[in-house]
Amino acid sequence: MTEPEETAPRGLSRRGLLGLVGAGAAGLAVGGGAVAAVGLSQPNGVGVSTVYPFFGEHQAGITTPAQDRLHFAAFDMASTATRDDLVELLRDWTYAAARLTQGHEVTEGGAVDGSPLAPPDDTGEALGLPASGLTITFGFGPTLFTTDDGTDRFGIADRRPALLEKLPRFSGDALRPESGGGDLCIQACADDPQVAVHAIRNLSRIAFGRASIRWSQLGFGRTSSTSTSQVTPRNLFGFKDGTANIKAEDPATVADQVWVAKGDGPAWMTGGSYLVTRKIRMIIEAWDRTQLQEQENVIGRSKGEGAPLSGGKEFTEPDFSAKGAAGQDLIGADAHVRLAHPTATGGAQLLRRGYNFVDGNDELGRLDAGLFFISFQRSPEQFVAVQKNLARDALNEYIKHVGSAIFAVPPGATTDSYVGAGLFA
Amino acid sequence: MTEPEETAPRGLSRRGLLGLVGAGAAGLAVGGGAVAAVGLSQPNGVGVSTVYPFFGEHQAGITTPAQDRLHFAAFDMASTATRDDLVELLRDWTYAAARLTQGHEVTEGGAVDGSPLAPPDDTGEALGLPASGLTITFGFGPTLFTTDDGTDRFGIADRRPALLEKLPRFSGDALRPESGGGDLCIQACADDPQVAVHAIRNLSRIAFGRASIRWSQLGFGRTSSTSTSQVTPRNLFGFKDGTANIKAEDPATVADQVWVAKGDGPAWMTGGSYLVTRKIRMIIEAWDRTQLQEQENVIGRSKGEGAPLSGGKEFTEPDFSAKGAAGQDLIGADAHVRLAHPTATGGAQLLRRGYNFVDGNDELGRLDAGLFFISFQRSPEQFVAVQKNLARDALNEYIKHVGSAIFAVPPGATTDSYVGAGLFA
Repeated sequence: MTEPEETAPRGLSRRGLLGLVGAGAAGLAVGGGAVAAVGLSQPNGVGVSTVYPFFGEHQAGITTPAQDRLHFAAFDMASTATRDDLVELLRDWTYAAARLTQGHEVTEGGAVDGSPLAPPDDTGEALGLPASGLTITFGFGPTLFTTDDGTDRFGIADRRPALLEKLPRFSGDALRPESGGGDLCIQACADDPQVAVHAIRNLSRIAFGRASIRWSQLGFGRTSSTSTSQVTPRNLFGFKDGTANIKAEDPATVADQVWVAKGDGPAWMTGGSYLVTRKIRMIIEAWDRTQLQEQENVIGRSKGEGAPLSGGKEFTEPDFSAKGAAGQDLIGADAHVRLAHPTATGGAQLLRRGYNFVDGNDELGRLDAGLFFISFQRSPEQFVAVQKNLARDALNEYIKHVGSAIFAVPPGATTDSYVGAGLFA
Repeated sequence: MTEPEETAPRGLSRRGLLGLVGAGAAGLAVGGGAVAAVGLSQPNGVGVSTVYPFFGEHQAGITTPAQDRLHFAAFDMASTATRDDLVELLRDWTYAAARLTQGHEVTEGGAVDGSPLAPPDDTGEALGLPASGLTITFGFGPTLFTTDDGTDRFGIADRRPALLEKLPRFSGDALRPESGGGDLCIQACADDPQVAVHAIRNLSRIAFGRASIRWSQLGFGRTSSTSTSQVTPRNLFGFKDGTANIKAEDPATVADQVWVAKGDGPAWMTGGSYLVTRKIRMIIEAWDRTQLQEQENVIGRSKGEGAPLSGGKEFTEPDFSAKGAAGQDLIGADAHVRLAHPTATGGAQLLRRGYNFVDGNDELGRLDAGLFFISFQRSPEQFVAVQKNLARDALNEYIKHVGSAIFAVPPGATTDSYVGAGLFA
């Protein structure tokens, strides 16, 4: 096994290359590294394309304007994996993610420029496609630090942030263990789903023998804006979602609510964030048979404009004291917008980044559809505060939380290091 | 029950409206039809958008340039459904599809312009989105005409095209009944997945009590071009797919291979086509560990350019007689491109319109991914000829057919009629 190097990842480890090309090719001169004379392949996609930097103070994919499509995967480490394997995997993932997000293939050899006698390093389905705004964001689950039975597999138990705990059970949870948890996660967001799928696929190949996918989720439509430049999208209840979301253009709130600050916990998390995923199945048939007025009362906003029921336009601040002619609250006591509002959560806000999903249909012919909720926050306590408040949410009649996970998202990597390096320093 | 009218659908039937608003609202003045004074809602989406006509000689979504995203659903009729229910359902679907494809909501009442005391007719998640090139294509499965035990539920058994038979068992089939078959199907293609999902969802609501979804499939990336104006996309094997596909710009081949001609069968099918779907799971891990040269030999084309191994560029015609220095066939006897080529299939060609899919992952952490194959052809015999030929295909080592269905696709409707009207004339 290769000893992790101190320097930046300049290529995949032997294990990473073996993951790409597979055990059957172990005796071959492995593809990618051997063709260093071939330069970075140039993306030759048509049309405009956004490219986000991979390296930086924070990981991309958090305050980045939410891309249209998602492929998210949670991984478990192999039972045989060592601390060195974990470090090497993170170095390999950093190397590959830095390339993929810039529109390059996973190695210089790529899909077609390696040896014809070796399996291609890159699976090739993104050949010719531009970077498409791809961001790749890595996170560490509680079980990476300590397994459920208390084992410290990688010698990092004492580095575990005190806040990184499995989420408590919430009222109405109907969690399926197979749709939650995980030692590691990768969030791949892009404006082209083929690019996001290509990233998760090739990163999971690299992990071969060290980590494997525990669960994964495709999201076809973003349900939040994270920039004031974006139109507010709609969720599958047909309502605008994320109107009051934290926006990148509000750096004070981002600093206060999203990024882990110095002194918040272990130094290696400074500049990072906490990521919560909740797979929320919508009971669409019940919702669809609910009166328009009742739907609007449940949300606390109008369906068309997305304005608070207290009046105004989409971005008008809700007036929770506003009364109707009969003296009733215009925004009800159990309206979603009231219970999720910072005034009701002790000031806690979440940067939401969820996606609509449809996973086919159930045996009764109902679409298996809903919201794959993602939020980033400085502390998981913010999510817990909001979610506990939502125990009284009128919306609960129409949703079921079936998956749950939490991850510590380390800060961004510098170009001479790798994501999560601080954890092992 | 409303007697089917002879005239064009000018609104949803009472049953269709009840499907939208649900049984709970049966006592209300139903939403959509009651607000006829409200004009067609105007799509207010941003950005360019293509709108395809719904009515015409042929249904749209066949030779239409293949859109980027797919939502496909197969339906079974309710056990209580009558012939009149079927006719009324087709009229309702025609009415709604004609609106949706033009970027309108499912009825004039839509999501927000109906009564606040009724459930909205439209689910609303496509509010503000343009038509996005949406096409909606309807088909009839063999079981619509005669159930497996020979029952003629709708008095149309004698109208069944002789060619519309369940597909024979092919070598290597590993079909799951729950991913195949169906009395009816709807193919919704669009450049925005939210628009395609919205269409299937609202059409399935309309069907409430008359038909329900049997199986459904999302596809995130097109794998075929049906127009010379389109770039050839890649499948999840990383190869360009559909280079030699039938293109709309070749009307002679389209007429010869895609559209049912007068005299081919029952008159009601003239101008229609036959639709085959095959859910093909790719054994991605095995493929990814195969040498590049072997991958190219399996396909018979280069991975980068997509040129035939006999030489040239992507669109160069393969030379199946070309030999290498050692006298070997440059395109092997079991290469996919050789076996699927019209020279090997007795001239049979297919208009392919498939999509890449990822349905999450299996319990071993492997992506459940592959190709949702769709083809349109003048006769199912064309598909059978090709598929039988592929029994020797080297690609079979890397794929598994898990779903199969066939549908008779009636011609397009005129503006004074509905899709499939000829079947009941």
